[in-house]
This record gives sequence, structure tokens and C-alpha cells, in this order.
Amino acid sequence: MPQQQSLALSDDQLEAINRAIEKNMPEYIQHMLTSLSAADIAHLLESSPPRQRSLIWKLVPIEDEGDVLNELGEEVRQFFTDQMNVAELISILEDQDIDDTVDILQNLPQKITRQVLDSMSQQNRHRVEEVLAYPENTAGGLMNTDTLTVRGDITVDVALRYIRLHESLPEPFDQLLIVDRKDHLSGTVSIRRLLTSPTSSLLSELMEETVHSIPVTMEDSQIAQIFEREDLISAPVIDEQGHLLGRITVDDVVDVIREEAEHSVMSMAGLAEDEDTFAPAWKTSRRRAVWLGVNLCTAFISASVIGLFQETIDRVVALAVLMPIVASMGGVAGSQTLTLIIRAIALGQIGKSNISWLLSREFLVGLFNGLLWATVVALAAMYWFDDTVIAVVIALALVINLIVAVLAGAMLPIALKALKIDPALAGSVALTTITDVVGFLSFLGLATLFYG
Amino acid sequence: MPQQQSLALSDDQLEAINRAIEKNMPEYIQHMLTSLSAADIAHLLESSPPRQRSLIWKLVPIEDEGDVLNELGEEVRQFFTDQMNVAELISILEDQDIDDTVDILQNLPQKITRQVLDSMSQQNRHRVEEVLAYPENTAGGLMNTDTLTVRGDITVDVALRYIRLHESLPEPFDQLLIVDRKDHLSGTVSIRRLLTSPTSSLLSELMEETVHSIPVTMEDSQIAQIFEREDLISAPVIDEQGHLLGRITVDDVVDVIREEAEHSVMSMAGLAEDEDTFAPAWKTSRRRAVWLGVNLCTAFISASVIGLFQETIDRVVALAVLMPIVASMGGVAGSQTLTLIIRAIALGQIGKSNISWLLSREFLVGLFNGLLWATVVALAAMYWFDDTVIAVVIALALVINLIVAVLAGAMLPIALKALKIDPALAGSVALTTITDVVGFLSFLGLATLFYG
Repeated sequence: MPQQQSLALSDDQLEAINRAIEKNMPEYIQHMLTSLSAADIAHLLESSPPRQRSLIWKLVPIEDEGDVLNELGEEVRQFFTDQMNVAELISILEDQDIDDTVDILQNLPQKITRQVLDSMSQQNRHRVEEVLAYPENTAGGLMNTDTLTVRGDITVDVALRYIRLHESLPEPFDQLLIVDRKDHLSGTVSIRRLLTSPTSSLLSELMEETVHSIPVTMEDSQIAQIFEREDLISAPVIDEQGHLLGRITVDDVVDVIREEAEHSVMSMAGLAEDEDTFAPAWKTSRRRAVWLGVNLCTAFISASVIGLFQETIDRVVALAVLMPIVASMGGVAGSQTLTLIIRAIALGQIGKSNISWLLSREFLVGLFNGLLWATVVALAAMYWFDDTVIAVVIALALVINLIVAVLAGAMLPIALKALKIDPALAGSVALTTITDVVGFLSFLGLATLFYG
Repeated sequence: MPQQQSLALSDDQLEAINRAIEKNMPEYIQHMLTSLSAADIAHLLESSPPRQRSLIWKLVPIEDEGDVLNELGEEVRQFFTDQMNVAELISILEDQDIDDTVDILQNLPQKITRQVLDSMSQQNRHRVEEVLAYPENTAGGLMNTDTLTVRGDITVDVALRYIRLHESLPEPFDQLLIVDRKDHLSGTVSIRRLLTSPTSSLLSELMEETVHSIPVTMEDSQIAQIFEREDLISAPVIDEQGHLLGRITVDDVVDVIREEAEHSVMSMAGLAEDEDTFAPAWKTSRRRAVWLGVNLCTAFISASVIGLFQETIDRVVALAVLMPIVASMGGVAGSQTLTLIIRAIALGQIGKSNISWLLSREFLVGLFNGLLWATVVALAAMYWFDDTVIAVVIALALVINLIVAVLAGAMLPIALKALKIDPALAGSVALTTITDVVGFLSFLGLATLFYG
């Protein structure tokens, strides 16, 4: 029976390490760290408050530092790289893959990047610079250049013997990339095919010519969609002329998918997707202050709408009691549509051909729910304040606000996307402003009409 | 140069198909569908309103229906399977993998599942029933049973010859699983290792004994974390006694990651993660009505808090103007913390050892932002209403509400998780109730004290 590896860092282990830190037992921590994988150590660092984090980092074996850095989220990683001098960085980056080195260099100051590059062997520097030239969120920035290529005019047997000459193979090793003399990608042969075909077959006979090759400029979100849809393990990256430049592997794509998904959740609360859970108080406060400030502006807009109707509220104070209901129901209805449409845009489901259907559907949903909950709220208001006018006014205002909310929820992300503004970030603030303003305006405005 | 496959369904293609539907040109659509992959057809169906969707489905070649079904989201898939009779289901499931068949059967009525199972060959039925017995969101429900196993006492050469006897190999084919006579998993040999080792080596010499083997009862979110951390392509699934039961592959894990991430975003708006973007109006309305109803309850709770202070509002109407600011700032500050903590829980970062640090950090963030924005709002209120009392009251209320908000945002998801309630679903409603109640109570309560 195989030895079961610790599958993930357990809460108990975290506890034990934290106790060891409190009791100042560095030897014990050092011992524990040697039994953990780089990914586990990274997880431990990300799950630790600043003081513990610095202590643990000092105890990470030097030879593991590079691997651990690679497994860290961008924000936490930068915290450590910012404290390193050029010599430390050089020694850490020495054994890393090209794409991992690039990841780290991308977040360093230009001057330091230059110094690190100068220290590399010419071949490595050339490779790193090649990848550094592409934007981080494109195929070029994501690819690795450690491809294993062969010509199509050799047999399976020769290919297998050639493969056996290597001490280690690129990982994952799912397909052979077939190139011609000019390094144009001609096709691929999967290892599965290679291992089940007659040893005398030519690779060109086994080769798949229809390849999921990725243009070097393609954006990472689109790459993720292709990997997901086609269940790919790796895919070759080519330039405009069809030259093979490198390949993208599924492990990097998994990271893209996770980051993308977290981006939506975190942006809606005005947070960055790689937000460090254990960032110190002052840093966290400063960042969140910005978002609170933006929201304060919208709150003042709503308040000034209410301000227009002070006289009416002065006459019928029940309006002040009920007005948040209209605004809040609009906010909830709108955010349901907003969330659905933001996801649909991310999945590439929205196009000219189906927007009008979506808008009519949302209109009907707003109308139906508006009528339903207007009835409930009107009855409750009637029972509470014994005032028919207020019941009618709140019912009308609810129907209006719910319809406006769902239409705004559907149109805002599409409009923001067209304006190249991130809908996940700006959508909910813009929507709340609309539903608050329309909610207060319709409710208090109608009340002013009816009572006036 | 390889033929570039259409990498993803473009907006133009969507347009063209929709125009063809409007103009009633089924031959043209049929022609287009034959050029699309199953994943692309599934994407087309998911991006189409109901009427178009039914029309397109009828034109999908029968032999592709199974593959397309497998690529569809659960809700859309069920829409089609609900309309099929048993004979159709049987013919569609005939060529599918065990895990895909199970996926589809899991959502069918018991009676139909029984009938489909009865139609299968005994071997297939046995395999499907084995997987059906495990909950959908565990390793058992996720695994495939098409493993290729060998004994450790054979040489690389024999293993390669044995592999070559197969017409096709399980996909992805990244490692050989080594079992003993009693089907206990003894270890794995990666194909990379197999292809670079001397042909006379015994597999037992090359074998990795430390295997990332997954217990059959492990939950899918934990499996996803292991795959992500360790960059796995596949992992064997074992029972308590260490018997090999099957394996999990990265393509299924990618789906888990995507669903998990979408679950957080969608739940926060009371939506299901596999929500059909193009569900018909009545179905959408009914579902959203429930969430709006829940939120209406919390809105009435806030309203009743305001109701307690009608007299004070009647005396100082400016209170009605400013009170939504206090509630809304609390809501925003709380939801930032809530989102951060929900993500941290999902990533397994929160444990007994770091909760107290997090709570003190959040307290400081609440205090800092409370003081900052209280000053701004107090100055604005002073300028607007020329009333020192109202400025002091709103400043105090803001500080109180922001501190309560961040603490509630941090503690709620931890408490809900402990109560086995989904924090993403219930967290924001519970938080809004707290920040509204505390916001109105502190602001109007303090005002009553100061003015009384």
C-alpha cells in the first residue's frame, strides 16, 4: 500500500506551527517545513498574519525558496521579493522554469529586472526576454518554451528512441509537436497514439493536422475557455506565420480560471482578486477607504434625492419608514440580473442576436415580481399605517423600481463592457445608484403628487 | 502549416445561425452544426433563447447528441433529457464514458434511471451502478473507472508492449497505475519516466510510492485544491482498504473549479451556479421571487426599526435624509470583509490560530475608515443642515456601524459555516439586516438622545 502523502495542510498542522512560533521553537518549525511541499509552505505563508509570515519565511530552506515563491499569490509574493536584493533574486531564479521566472520578474522594478537579466546565461536571458516581451495576460505571457519537437518524416520507433535520449521530459508530456525545417508547426501526435501505433509508422501518418494551436496574442480568458471546452492538457503557441513559439499547459490554465472567477467575486466588493487575506491593518484600511469613498458619493446622491421631498416627509412621516423598502428591493432585483449578465458575458453567451430577447425576459421578470411584491407590501403598509394612499404609492413605486432595476441590471454590464470598464467592479455601484435614486424618486415623488 | 480549427464559436457565427433560424433555413443550420465541435454546439444552445434552442437541438446530428448533452450545463441539459423517452436516452448513452453517463442519470427520475440501467450490458450496468452509489460531489461521483493497471514485477519493455496491445488508451494518459494481486494500489509510474528509463528496468524500481491518491469519499472542493496545488493531470481513487477504484482527471477538476467559483458569485445574488441564462420568464420570475421575498423580510425589519423613531424624524426631518447614508456605508464595509473571509474559507486559510488576528485587523480597519468617513460626512451634514447635533450624531453612528459591519462581515461566514449554512448564500442577507438595523438604530437612537 502506498505511503499516503499529506494531501493538504491540515488545520492541526497550522495550529502546531503557530504554537511553535509563539513558543519560539524555530528548530521544530524548520523540521515541519522540510516535510511540506512547496505548495503547502506557500499555503501556510498565505494563511499567516504578517509577523508569523516573516518568521516562517526565514526558516524556509534556501533551495526551496524559488518553488515556494512560485506557488504564492502575487501580492504575498511581492511582499517577499520587495525585501530581496539582486543577489538573492538571482540565486532563487536560477533553477526556475522560464515562465515562472518571467512571472516573478514582471512584478519587480525595471532596474532590478535588468540586473537579474544581466546575470543570466545568454541563452536563458534570451528566452526570458522573449516571454517578457508579451503582455502577462496573453498566450505569450503564459507560455513555456520547453517544447520537445520532432520532424514528421521519422518513424514511431525512432521517435521513441529519440525521446529515451532525454533525461527528463517536459511536463505534462501529452503530445509530440511536429515542425518542419523552418520551425512551422505542422501538427501533433498524441503520446497515446504514439504508444498504440505500429513502431514502423511514420509520424506524419499519425499526425493530427487540425491542432488547437493558440495565437501568441490571444487573451488568457479565451485560452481558458478553449482548454475547458476541448479538455486540453497542453496546446502549442504560434506566431502569425505559424512558427512554433512554445506551449501552454493545463496547470497554468487552471490558475487563470481560478483568478478569473475570483476576480468577479472580489471586484463586486471593490477588492483585488489576489488580495492578501492577512494584509496588515493600515494597508487594508487604505485600500478599502477608496471603495467606501466611491460608495459615499452614491449615498449622497440618494440622500439629496430624499432631500427634495423633506416637506412631504414632514407631513407624512410613514414615508420615511417605508422608503428604504422600495430602494432595497430594487437593489436586490437589479443585482440578480447584473450577476447573471456579468457571468453570461464572461462565458461569451451574449451577442447582438440575443440581447433583445434577454431584455424582454428581464422586463417580464421585473413586472411579475414587481406586481407580486407590490401587492404584499401594499397590504402590509395598509395594515401598518391604515392609509390607502401610502399603500397605492408604495405599490406603484415598487413596480416601477423593480422594472427599472432589472433593465438596468441587464444593460449596465453590456454598456460598461463596451466602454471597456470592468462590469464586475463598476456594475454594482452604478446599479445601486440607479435603484436608490429611482426608488426614492418614484416613492416620494408619487407621494408628493397624491398627498399634494 | 496546420489547419486552424475554429477556436471558439464567434459572435458572427452566432449571428449567422440566428438569422438562419429567423429565415427558416434548417439545411443551412444543419450544415453549420456539422462543422462545429460538440462543445461549440453546447455553447450555441446555452447562448440561445428557448425557441431557437429547441429548433437547433432538433437539427443536431443524432450521433452527436450524447457528446453535446455532456458539454451542457446541468440546467439546460435537464431541459432536453426531460423531453426524451427511455429509448432515446438509451441510444444516446450507449457510447458515453461511465462518468458522463452517471452525470446524466443522476438528474433523471429514479424510474427512468432504472429502465436505462436495465437496458445496459451487465458489465456496463455494474460499472455505472458502482459510481452512482457515491454522492455526486465526492471523488466517487467524479471518478472514471477506465483505468489501465499493471503489476510492478514487469519490465518497461513488457509494459510498453502491453500498452501497444490496446486500441486506445484512457485520456489523459499520464501515468501507469501499479496494483498488486488484490488490486491494492502500490504506486504509479509516470509515462515520462517510462519513456526515459532503460527498457530492462522493472516498474517496481521506477515506481513512485508516494502517490496523491484520493480517498473515494473526499469532497470535490478538496480534490480541486490538491490538483491545483500539485499540478496534477490525473490521480487514482482508492477505498479505505487501499483498493484502486478508478481515477479522476484534470478536465473534470477544471469543471469543479469553475462551478465552485461561480457558486460564490451566483449565490450572493440568490442564484444557482448552473442558472440557465436564457431560462423562460415565468421560470426565472418564480425563482427570483423567493430571494426577493427573503430580502423583503429583512427590509421590513429595518423599516420597523425606523418606525420606532417616527417622533424624532417628525421633529428633525433631516434625519430621514441622512439615515440611508449610515446604513449603506455599513453595508459596503461589511460586504468587503464578508467577501474576503468567504474566499479565505474556500481556500482553507482560516483556522483557530488566525481568527483572532483577523478580527483585530478588521476592527482596526472599521475604526480607521469609520473615523475617516465620519469626519467627511459630519462636515457635509454640517454644511447642508447647519446643525452641529446632527453632524455629531451621524459621525458617531457611522463609526459604530462600520465597526459592527466589519466584525459581522468577518464572523458571519465563520458562524454560518459552522452551522453548515452556505455563507455565500445566506451571508449577504444576514449582513444587510445587521448593518441596516445597527445603522438606523444607532443614528436615530443617538438623535433621540441628543434632541430629547
